[in-house]
Amino acid sequence: MTQSPQKPRVTIYNEFVHEQKNDFVKSIYPNGMHAPIATGLREHLGVEARIATLEMPEHGLSEEVLNATDVLVWWGHVAHGQVADSVVDRVQRRVLEGMGLVVLHSGHYSKIFKRLMGTSCGLLWREAAEKERLWVVNPNHPITQGIPACIVIENEEMYGEQFDIPDPDELLFISWFEGGEVFRSGAVWHRGRGRVFYFRPGHEAYPTYHHPDVLKVISNGVRWAAFQGNTETRGIGNCFHVAQPLEPISEKNYAGGVVHPTEFQDRLT
Amino acid sequence: MTQSPQKPRVTIYNEFVHEQKNDFVKSIYPNGMHAPIATGLREHLGVEARIATLEMPEHGLSEEVLNATDVLVWWGHVAHGQVADSVVDRVQRRVLEGMGLVVLHSGHYSKIFKRLMGTSCGLLWREAAEKERLWVVNPNHPITQGIPACIVIENEEMYGEQFDIPDPDELLFISWFEGGEVFRSGAVWHRGRGRVFYFRPGHEAYPTYHHPDVLKVISNGVRWAAFQGNTETRGIGNCFHVAQPLEPISEKNYAGGVVHPTEFQDRLT
Amino acid sequence: MTQSPQKPRVTIYNEFVHEQKNDFVKSIYPNGMHAPIATGLREHLGVEARIATLEMPEHGLSEEVLNATDVLVWWGHVAHGQVADSVVDRVQRRVLEGMGLVVLHSGHYSKIFKRLMGTSCGLLWREAAEKERLWVVNPNHPITQGIPACIVIENEEMYGEQFDIPDPDELLFISWFEGGEVFRSGAVWHRGRGRVFYFRPGHEAYPTYHHPDVLKVISNGVRWAAFQGNTETRGIGNCFHVAQPLEPISEKNYAGGVVHPTEFQDRLT
Amino acid sequence: MTQSPQKPRVTIYNEFVHEQKNDFVKSIYPNGMHAPIATGLREHLGVEARIATLEMPEHGLSEEVLNATDVLVWWGHVAHGQVADSVVDRVQRRVLEGMGLVVLHSGHYSKIFKRLMGTSCGLLWREAAEKERLWVVNPNHPITQGIPACIVIENEEMYGEQFDIPDPDELLFISWFEGGEVFRSGAVWHRGRGRVFYFRPGHEAYPTYHHPDVLKVISNGVRWAAFQGNTETRGIGNCFHVAQPLEPISEKNYAGGVVHPTEFQDRLT
Repeated sequence: MTQSPQKPRVTIYNEFVHEQKNDFVKSIYPNGMHAPIATGLREHLGVEARIATLEMPEHGLSEEVLNATDVLVWWGHVAHGQVADSVVDRVQRRVLEGMGLVVLHSGHYSKIFKRLMGTSCGLLWREAAEKERLWVVNPNHPITQGIPACIVIENEEMYGEQFDIPDPDELLFISWFEGGEVFRSGAVWHRGRGRVFYFRPGHEAYPTYHHPDVLKVISNGVRWAAFQGNTETRGIGNCFHVAQPLEPISEKNYAGGVVHPTEFQDRLT
Repeated sequence: MTQSPQKPRVTIYNEFVHEQKNDFVKSIYPNGMHAPIATGLREHLGVEARIATLEMPEHGLSEEVLNATDVLVWWGHVAHGQVADSVVDRVQRRVLEGMGLVVLHSGHYSKIFKRLMGTSCGLLWREAAEKERLWVVNPNHPITQGIPACIVIENEEMYGEQFDIPDPDELLFISWFEGGEVFRSGAVWHRGRGRVFYFRPGHEAYPTYHHPDVLKVISNGVRWAAFQGNTETRGIGNCFHVAQPLEPISEKNYAGGVVHPTEFQDRLT
Repeated sequence: MTQSPQKPRVTIYNEFVHEQKNDFVKSIYPNGMHAPIATGLREHLGVEARIATLEMPEHGLSEEVLNATDVLVWWGHVAHGQVADSVVDRVQRRVLEGMGLVVLHSGHYSKIFKRLMGTSCGLLWREAAEKERLWVVNPNHPITQGIPACIVIENEEMYGEQFDIPDPDELLFISWFEGGEVFRSGAVWHRGRGRVFYFRPGHEAYPTYHHPDVLKVISNGVRWAAFQGNTETRGIGNCFHVAQPLEPISEKNYAGGVVHPTEFQDRLT
Repeated sequence: MTQSPQKPRVTIYNEFVHEQKNDFVKSIYPNGMHAPIATGLREHLGVEARIATLEMPEHGLSEEVLNATDVLVWWGHVAHGQVADSVVDRVQRRVLEGMGLVVLHSGHYSKIFKRLMGTSCGLLWREAAEKERLWVVNPNHPITQGIPACIVIENEEMYGEQFDIPDPDELLFISWFEGGEVFRSGAVWHRGRGRVFYFRPGHEAYPTYHHPDVLKVISNGVRWAAFQGNTETRGIGNCFHVAQPLEPISEKNYAGGVVHPTEFQDRLT
């Protein structure tokens, strides 16, 4: 199945810690930060997302759940270290197999994002309820469609450059912050047969996931990441032995005698 | 120190297993595969490389050695699994800090390369002593300077696409194989402040590391990877708190009262 | 209109010279090379392509036609020089506005492709009816979906590296040729709000456009290129004056006095 | 000659119109905007740049001058349209052959930059003497070495996204503007064997080219762009016929008979 499904099966992983411990955060997200995100997906894509949280067995990300997930949305912050490595292994494997991954805000420092990037994913930050402006720099990508030239968020945490990520395959958004910093706020990479989208906004102390444009970007991101790459190619997940050459290989006088191509491996190893 | 050192301090990690166990391999590389590579670096760059092997304590890659290494060359094959995770952690950290890494041939499946790529790094392969032609596709890179349009290797193992890597920052070489496959044989990425170069040729059963053009490419690669990125930027290795805004942030009436920017964090967390 | 139209309006520009002058070419493409391409688009996308040829007024690419075209397919070879510059200007403008462009084979040397690339678009070539194998290197792109790991074409003209193009946004196919060369045979770029796909196969002396996989790739390419980027961004086609700042700019004591931001331009120019 | 010359031969093209017509601009740049740029190159690279201006014969960019130029720096604004197409053709050809090009500020709208990009190179702008902050986003590039994490320019013209350029090969700087916009202010591309660096700052009404960090970036850019790619590859500037195959091509029973590879071309065309 290689085409982007019309209605992707989406799982939202939300750490769901702040909303249970901090009254102010709870007042913004009484049903958890995943709730408005799920609402956005319902409205824009008509999908009913499954919810997974840290406290669930296997963080709600069992083999069965991931196998039935086309796109995983990830929000985490204070509890990155509590996510089991075995679950991270599983998510990485599924991404390489074709599952999409949408990483939000502080998810930049999650095990899974660092794992897929190979870098520290460090950045600068400041929490001062400052204004953020997200500018579209790539009008040619499905994720920026229907999005205004500039999304304005009145209060947000600041993330600043230098952001330690591999150069994105495509850079979509750059943020301006009131306090003087900039940030590559929307970027995509492919990894194996899967697609990864990082989107910056969404600190727990601000009502960012009630912002219509933010929800639209996330929904666009989920739709884009639902693409599952061509499975007719090989090389993903293992090394594949092509015993029989496609084209004739001349016999070689090598390693002490004339050897036929298909006998070579036994001879030398 | 941000400029590329004139004479980089180079360490060659060679697993050094085949050359001790297999007589035919030993006949090609009597002093180990690292020996001709070291000779090439001596001739082209005037550097005396340090040698590290699997069987040494910490595989010869102690904290002290890595801290005194500008570029690490990596060859491994059958013993990837025996490389200690703690050493892989250390090498990754050093790459992000600015150490260059040149990964050769079967090193595509090493822990460190997979770690930095985030993918499976799988591929197709066949051992039939077939002819390989490496074509330069990017004449504009330091690594391809002085290299003919096409390097011919009479006998090599085949590696074929699809090669499961992130899209390279720059693609330098594409290989043609007698048996019908192609491969992205030379590619570069940056990770943190460090640079990574993957170069395909060099199966242990063939005298590839006696080939002058191959040695020249490796030397070019070491010189290029010796670059240590700008340390004046932050964000690599950790998240850096910018308590004091660069630009004035207006006071916000937020979270139940007017809050001054620099008091925000205490208020909310 | 920013979403990819379900049924894009496609125009195929075919120079249509060889098929009228050369009996052997005519025997392969009795109705022109555009005919089987149009059939492929009909079968895969359900669209009825408009045909444009060199000899038509304005080469069949009038303002009206281009304004009603979502994707333009381009095949040319011996008569690149006869294409009017005014038509090339018009096609370029339409691409920047959002029209897709699929450039086939010898179209690499067309005025419009060179114009959009900014390079010479030179390459190596040989006509010897040799075998070509096109390998998928990016399984994650819509254009490679449903395509086998390797497309085999029994007889084709050879194109070889180094191919003088800007680094593609994404590289999709690499060709292997019987005679020893390789080529970046499928690649995409975006330019303004439009998308460009170059696909190598299709010399007039071979029945390449009767090959089902080739037609499927072209159809995938047309579907992908039919995307028209977000028109809510500005900056494409002109420079846009933002007279009124979005954020307050402090009054500056500059150029001999205190100047209010919105008066600055008159003062200095 | 493929190595980066120690002391590149640099030509600075400065339109040199504002400085002769506008008293305020003249007060900032009494000897032309090229003067402080040349001083910066002298101090950082020890080179004595040649000066070319619009009013000189052939704008000071004759065949002889360009053939003796390793890197051309370009500043233009009001007189882009007066630059002769024949000179633009010549500069483009030299870039493809290996000459570096450093395009400054309003040079984004020059004929030569548009020619090499293939896009409109449009953007948003405002002249309000506002503050600009240029953030390094790529610490791994020679152009950002020795540059602080953020360059502050107190007064500048604003350029804002969406900037209509092809995706850069590497993005180096992002600007923050007081008035709320962001911009991709430093970016590189390669074209043929040449390298292109675009750097945003430098409106004629501000003393930007007296800023030490700006001069350092320009000097770094000139040093980087002085690289002349490998001339052993072919394909740049023309199409190269490889009459004799590198590998044996089997005789083909094609086009009405068995044809030997090297006779093919005559038979069919």
